[in-house]
Amino acid sequence: MIIDDIRITPIAVADPPLRNAAGIHAPYALRIIVELLASNGLVGISEIPGDVRTEDALRESAEFIVGTDPFALNVLAERIEKRRREHAGARFEDHDGEESRGDAPWDRRITVHVQSAVEVACLDLIGKETGHRACDILGGAVRERVPFAAYLFYKERGAGGRLGFDVSPATRGWPAARQAAALDPEGIVAQAHAMCDAFGFESVKLKGGVFPPEEEVSAVLALREAFGPSVPLRFDPNAAWSLKTAIAMGKRLEGVLEYYEDPVRGQEAMAEIGKTVDIPRATNMCTTSFDDIPSGVRLGSEDIILADHHFWGGIRPCIELGRVCRTFGRGLSMHSNTHLGVSLAAMVHLAAATPHLTYALDTHYPWQSDEVIVGGRFDFDSGTVKVPDGPGLGVELDREKLSELHANYVECGLTHRDDEAEMRKLEPGWTFVPTRW
Amino acid sequence: MIIDDIRITPIAVADPPLRNAAGIHAPYALRIIVELLASNGLVGISEIPGDVRTEDALRESAEFIVGTDPFALNVLAERIEKRRREHAGARFEDHDGEESRGDAPWDRRITVHVQSAVEVACLDLIGKETGHRACDILGGAVRERVPFAAYLFYKERGAGGRLGFDVSPATRGWPAARQAAALDPEGIVAQAHAMCDAFGFESVKLKGGVFPPEEEVSAVLALREAFGPSVPLRFDPNAAWSLKTAIAMGKRLEGVLEYYEDPVRGQEAMAEIGKTVDIPRATNMCTTSFDDIPSGVRLGSEDIILADHHFWGGIRPCIELGRVCRTFGRGLSMHSNTHLGVSLAAMVHLAAATPHLTYALDTHYPWQSDEVIVGGRFDFDSGTVKVPDGPGLGVELDREKLSELHANYVECGLTHRDDEAEMRKLEPGWTFVPTRW
Repeated sequence: MIIDDIRITPIAVADPPLRNAAGIHAPYALRIIVELLASNGLVGISEIPGDVRTEDALRESAEFIVGTDPFALNVLAERIEKRRREHAGARFEDHDGEESRGDAPWDRRITVHVQSAVEVACLDLIGKETGHRACDILGGAVRERVPFAAYLFYKERGAGGRLGFDVSPATRGWPAARQAAALDPEGIVAQAHAMCDAFGFESVKLKGGVFPPEEEVSAVLALREAFGPSVPLRFDPNAAWSLKTAIAMGKRLEGVLEYYEDPVRGQEAMAEIGKTVDIPRATNMCTTSFDDIPSGVRLGSEDIILADHHFWGGIRPCIELGRVCRTFGRGLSMHSNTHLGVSLAAMVHLAAATPHLTYALDTHYPWQSDEVIVGGRFDFDSGTVKVPDGPGLGVELDREKLSELHANYVECGLTHRDDEAEMRKLEPGWTFVPTRW
Repeated sequence: MIIDDIRITPIAVADPPLRNAAGIHAPYALRIIVELLASNGLVGISEIPGDVRTEDALRESAEFIVGTDPFALNVLAERIEKRRREHAGARFEDHDGEESRGDAPWDRRITVHVQSAVEVACLDLIGKETGHRACDILGGAVRERVPFAAYLFYKERGAGGRLGFDVSPATRGWPAARQAAALDPEGIVAQAHAMCDAFGFESVKLKGGVFPPEEEVSAVLALREAFGPSVPLRFDPNAAWSLKTAIAMGKRLEGVLEYYEDPVRGQEAMAEIGKTVDIPRATNMCTTSFDDIPSGVRLGSEDIILADHHFWGGIRPCIELGRVCRTFGRGLSMHSNTHLGVSLAAMVHLAAATPHLTYALDTHYPWQSDEVIVGGRFDFDSGTVKVPDGPGLGVELDREKLSELHANYVECGLTHRDDEAEMRKLEPGWTFVPTRW
C-alpha cells in the first residue's frame, strides 16, 4: 500500500461565541480535513485545526508523503520534523527553541499539526487495510467506552455560523441552552445542567480567565453546590491569573476541584502553586511538548498533563506521553479544541488504547452542530462515546457535508483563528493581556 | 483471532565458558521458547531467558492469556502486572519495591520476562494475521539493516555444551577462536580480530569485571591500538569496581571509549563518575525499569540506557523507553544475554522501529552455535542483520531443532542460571563480590 495522493479540504464549522482569556470564538471555527488516497483504493482520513499556514504546510508536505507506505509512520514523522528544521534554518541549529516555536515559517505548532494529520490518516489506512480498529493497531482497547467531561464556557447569546444542518442527537433542551448566554454563576449552572442532561456527562469543567476571579470562583462554587461532591469539577483560568491571585483563589477551591488547570502562566509559576495550594494541577499551556518535560519534572510544574493528538504530533506520541506521565507520577487527561467527528473518533481511539488516560476527556463537541461524517453526529451515553466498530477510525466522510462545510470556509473568509479580533467586534479596543488579574 | 493455547518449551543452548563479575557461563544457557496458538491456525513465537520460575509463571499465566485477542497487548500486559501484585501481596501494597523485586514469588524480573514472551508472540501473530512485518506494525522501519557490536569476553578454553549441530555461517577462523581461551590483552585482541573478521562488526565491546582493573584497562588499550580510533569501543566492568577505581581507570580511558558501561554499582555512584570522568556512561544495571528513571534523571546517573525487550516487558515498552531517553537527552543502545534467532529477530525489529536507537546493539549471538529457527543461523553483513522479510518476526521454529534443544534441557539438569556455582567448579571457594576492586 502506497500513498498516491493527499486531499486537503479546509472547512468552517459553526461555533458559538465562547469566551476565553484570549477573546471570543468567531462564528466559524476552522478545521482541515485530510484524506490520504492509497494505491489500493483505500482512503485514510484525519482532522486538524485549520489555519492557512497549516494548509500550506500540508500542501508542501505532499512531495514527501506521496509515494510512501502508510505503515512508515516513523519515517513520515521524521521527514516532517526535518522540513521544520530546514525552514527554521540557522535558528534551529542554535537550539533557540523559543524563537523557532513561533517565528519560523514552519513553527512547532504547524509541525505537530501536520504530523498529526498524516499519522492519524495513516492509522486509518492501516486499520482499513488490515481490517482492524485503530485502537487495536495501537495495543488494544483498555476501555470500550471513553468518558468525556461537560466543557462549560462563558458565552454570549447565539450559536455561531450558519446552522443549516444541525443533526445533533441531543435533546432535552440542549439546543436552546447552546443558544443562551452564560455570563454569571446562574448562567453557568444552567448551561451545566442542560449539557449534562443532554449528554450524561459525569465530570464538569469550566473555562475561565474571562471575568474577575471572584466571579469565576463563585461560578465554580455554584457548580459544586448544584452537582455535589460526586461530580468531579475542573476549573481552567486559562493562565490569566497572577501567582498571588491563583494562590488566593486556589485556597478557596481546595476540596472542591478535581484539578486546577493552568491558573497561571509558565512552569515556574505553576510549580509555585503546587507548593501552596492543595489541588492537583493540570496543564496544556506550560508543558506542551516533549521538550518541556524535563524542566516540568525538575520544577514540579504539574500533576496532570492534558494530551492532545493534534498538538503532540499524533496518537502514538500521546501514548508515549502516557508512558512519560506514568513514569514521572503524572496523570494524563485530554485537551480539546472545537472539532468534528473525525477528531472525536481519533480521540476515542487514543483514549481507548492508553491505559494511563484515566480522566474524563475534554471535548468541545456539544458546542458544534455541524458534522462531516456519514451517519451524523456521535451519540453520547452517560457522557461516554463508544469506540467505533469499523476498521481504522471507524468513520467515513460525508462528501456532501464536506462540500457544504468547505463552502462555509470559502464564504466566511476566515484564514486563521483570532479570538482577540472577534472580541473587538464586541468590545472595541479589547486587548489580550497574558496575566489579567 | 483468539489465543487458543500456549506452548512453553524450555531449551538448553550450548554456551562457552564466558566470564563476568558474577562467575562464568555454564556449558548450557537456558532459554524458553513460547508459542501462542491462535484460533485461526496461526502460531506466534517468542524467546526469553530460561528459569524454572519463569516457566512456572508462564504456565500459570495461561489461564488469562488463553481466550484473549492477541491484539489486546495493553490488557495482557496489565493482567500480568496484576498477577505480580497479587503474588507480592501486602509487600507490594507497601510500595516496598526492593523487597518485591527479588523475594516475591513473581518478582519484577519474572514479570517482565512473561510480559515480553507474551507481547512478542502476539506481535508475531498480529504480523502474520495482517501480512506485515513486526517492525511495520510498530511504526515502520527507520533502518532496514541493524548494526551490532562485537561482544568480547574473557573466557576459558572451550565452546560449551554439546555442539552437535553447529550450523553457524561464520567462517574465517571464528569457530576456532570461539573455542580458544582469552585471558589477557593478547587473547582479547585475537578474539576481537576473529569475531570482526567473521561477522564484520564495526563496534567492539569488552565485558570486564573479571581481572584486576589494570589488566582490563590494558586489554581495552590494546584493542584501541589494534583497531584504531575509527572503531567505537565500549567497556563494561560489570559494576565490579569501586568509585575510586572506576574514576582512576576512567581517566585513563577518556578519548578511548564510546561509552563506559556500569563501571560502578548504583545510580548515586554512576552519577559521581559523570562528574569526574569525561566519557558517556551507559547502563543496564543501575536504571533497569521505568521505576528507576525518575531517580536516574534527578541524579544524572547515565548518558545512555541499554534497552532489552526481555527485561523491559516487551518491544513496545522499549520503544516508549526510546521516547523517554530522547526526552531526557539520553542515548539508547541495547543489552543482550545468550540468545538464539527468535530473540535476535525481535531485537532487529525493535531496533528497526526505534528512531532513537542509534548505537550498534550488543549481542551474544556469535557465541552460540545452536539455532532453533528454520534455515539456521542469521547472516551478518558488515556487522549488520537485515530485518527479516516475512510477516511478524519473520522467523519460524525448526521443530526438530526445538526438540533437540529441549532434550538438551532435560539432560543437562540445569533449572536456572548460576554463574557463581559454575565458577566454583573452576575455582573452588570462589565467591561473587559485588564490588571487587
